[in-house]
Amino acid sequence: MAIVDITVIPVGTATPSVSEFVAEIQKVLQKYEGKVKFQLTPMSTLIEGDLKLLLEIVQELHEVPFQKGLQRVCTNVRIDDRRDKENTMERKLQSVQSKI
Amino acid sequence: MAIVDITVIPVGTATPSVSEFVAEIQKVLQKYEGKVKFQLTPMSTLIEGDLKLLLEIVQELHEVPFQKGLQRVCTNVRIDDRRDKENTMERKLQSVQSKI
Amino acid sequence: MAIVDITVIPVGTATPSVSEFVAEIQKVLQKYEGKVKFQLTPMSTLIEGDLKLLLEIVQELHEVPFQKGLQRVCTNVRIDDRRDKENTMERKLQSVQSKI
Amino acid sequence: MAIVDITVIPVGTATPSVSEFVAEIQKVLQKYEGKVKFQLTPMSTLIEGDLKLLLEIVQELHEVPFQKGLQRVCTNVRIDDRRDKENTMERKLQSVQSKI
Repeated sequence: MAIVDITVIPVGTATPSVSEFVAEIQKVLQKYEGKVKFQLTPMSTLIEGDLKLLLEIVQELHEVPFQKGLQRVCTNVRIDDRRDKENTMERKLQSVQSKI
Repeated sequence: MAIVDITVIPVGTATPSVSEFVAEIQKVLQKYEGKVKFQLTPMSTLIEGDLKLLLEIVQELHEVPFQKGLQRVCTNVRIDDRRDKENTMERKLQSVQSKI
Repeated sequence: MAIVDITVIPVGTATPSVSEFVAEIQKVLQKYEGKVKFQLTPMSTLIEGDLKLLLEIVQELHEVPFQKGLQRVCTNVRIDDRRDKENTMERKLQSVQSKI
Repeated sequence: MAIVDITVIPVGTATPSVSEFVAEIQKVLQKYEGKVKFQLTPMSTLIEGDLKLLLEIVQELHEVPFQKGLQRVCTNVRIDDRRDKENTMERKLQSVQSKI
């Protein structure tokens, strides 16, 4: 089980606001309900699931601004993949909080 | 007002677990209570405040694994800085959620 | 044409050195000679080509430390994708250098 | 000795081109000639030197698009900091190339 943390930055938007693109990304993710877990944070979108599927979703989310007419997109992805034990968003938070 | 999103990855830990370092980072941040806002997510730590102070905190958090004896640290920082309107973690989330 | 910039950080290596993993990544890329362009920098590996293929390569490179026995890998990917004009590593450098 | 890898993405540029901002960043860096080493790659700018100074430079480079009238900037920084041996851009490349 892997977790990806993705930001999709549209370049050439004329205005500083990008929230319409981030909202559209959340709508795309709703199609994957039950297959992956996802969480919006103030800085990015986190998605948990099988890595192959996650990278397909990364590509789909990266396409969102192009579909809205933009010509350049800069996407940033962090992948955290741990295979000696269950690696879920919930477990990671608990593991840190138990040590504070 | 800027927001930074930081991950501090200690290299050479012998085991795959890094939660003790992330927990220590949360303890360091508690010193800044009232000066910055911070939030732990499953993938990183978000900090909101004056950018100059945020970058000083980035350096302090980056030092945490060295203080615990590690010899190499890879830190990743995303800065989101918007100056035409109030740029807070809370407002960013609301702006996206109002458009879903 | 897209460009990805990838760092693959193995977690739990016992020593601070990760160059053996980076070298193995260059060997994997040699299989793709002619299909993508790639360049090693002191901080990451850059790969230029069709985005779908690039993301398949990202997954393959991310597997390298697991194949060498590691149990956790943190991979960081920046994607730059521009569709109004040819977006190559060479053209990007020239475009900046002509303006300095 | 630390190395930082920085991309400064101006948001709200009207056009997809950002090379004028990247060129300006190289001009700012020329002021630091002799104090830090720097290298432009097709995807980012690498800077080697004392970490405290590097983070001051990060802040200065992040200001470049604001000085040109933009209202939002998303900056991404990777820090690689190794203290058991000399950590230079040149040595890192040699270390990988000797293992390919």
